[in-house]
Amino acid sequence: MKSTSRTELRRLPNRGSSDPDVIHSILDDAFLAHVGFTVDGQPFVIPTLFGREEDKLYLHGSSASRMLRHLDTGVPACVNVTIVDGLVLARSAFHHSMNYRSVVAFGTARKLLEPSQKTHALRVISEHVIAGRWQDVRSPSEKELKATTVLEFAVEEASAKIRRGPPLDDEEDYSLPVWAGILPLGLEQKAPVPDLRLAAAPEVPPYVLRYRRPSQLGG
Amino acid sequence: MKSTSRTELRRLPNRGSSDPDVIHSILDDAFLAHVGFTVDGQPFVIPTLFGREEDKLYLHGSSASRMLRHLDTGVPACVNVTIVDGLVLARSAFHHSMNYRSVVAFGTARKLLEPSQKTHALRVISEHVIAGRWQDVRSPSEKELKATTVLEFAVEEASAKIRRGPPLDDEEDYSLPVWAGILPLGLEQKAPVPDLRLAAAPEVPPYVLRYRRPSQLGG
Repeated sequence: MKSTSRTELRRLPNRGSSDPDVIHSILDDAFLAHVGFTVDGQPFVIPTLFGREEDKLYLHGSSASRMLRHLDTGVPACVNVTIVDGLVLARSAFHHSMNYRSVVAFGTARKLLEPSQKTHALRVISEHVIAGRWQDVRSPSEKELKATTVLEFAVEEASAKIRRGPPLDDEEDYSLPVWAGILPLGLEQKAPVPDLRLAAAPEVPPYVLRYRRPSQLGG
Repeated sequence: MKSTSRTELRRLPNRGSSDPDVIHSILDDAFLAHVGFTVDGQPFVIPTLFGREEDKLYLHGSSASRMLRHLDTGVPACVNVTIVDGLVLARSAFHHSMNYRSVVAFGTARKLLEPSQKTHALRVISEHVIAGRWQDVRSPSEKELKATTVLEFAVEEASAKIRRGPPLDDEEDYSLPVWAGILPLGLEQKAPVPDLRLAAAPEVPPYVLRYRRPSQLGG
């Protein structure tokens, strides 16, 4: 990955990073990406699950998906991944903000054709979203693989942007009698809901019970 | 808002809606939007806080922001808002999915110039992100308003896409001894973290303590 004018950080450079380790760790803490592409001058932004392997992102969906069919043509695309860590409540409206970790990545996608490559990529996505699940479930059949488009998005450029820490108010505002601080937010799980048609009532697997996205709340 | 070929749902129509009430309720349950636009053929996707008023979305940021300066030129843009409600764990890899509520909106943005309009829009954003906060904090000064770009994004077309409910497996897979069900996920708050420089140690306001995004977990 390199960093050029597309990814250069124009403001608040202290919040930016092009460190691959930082970028990878944000990508690995998330499982939802927003993919942007342009059709006849009209921008589209589509949410999708993804997986990461080195500097490649894998996306998948129905072979009928407009997004996947369009991206497959090798057009320039943009992937954004953002994790909200908290609301920053300052003493002035102006200094309100959000604590977050975000990655923007540029590149082009190509369709995987080999069934073994497709299966590998689907496994990477599955393990990225919920590690441990893949070995428990029925693998994709030949027919299912054909009905699934799998894209490899090679990241050409990427940068991370992070805000953490307390509100930063104007010096004269610190004496205002206003509560200020961080409201930490994070993605949390509730109790798993078993499918009503569970056959032999198998136990909830540990990777479901203990599911957590690594997260630095509030910071 | 209308619905045309840009927003028509090509697959799984049972998951789609162009009902304005459905679209508004998803927009109001979220506070983070992903905005897509194209510069010289290169798509960009940027995360940003937003507020809604009728069929208008308000976005804001530094006047130095590349995104806001570009959108201000009246180019076509796309806004996506997605709320993750849970992971759908099926018996086959193929039928894994996500429960979510998502809105895609198309339109163009214009920069607000009148200070009173800008202040109004900033209040809408603030109340959208954390209702009750605006009246407690110092309002924007003239200088701060000048340093803030506020965009009004008039939604021309929008559609919602929703998945809820249990996994839907192939009939022959229901007998597999695999745990299946929903892992509900949602944005949750942790205990507020007071700023270390709080002056008179005011109490945490109720709208911070009881902050909740309305959410239909798991479904």
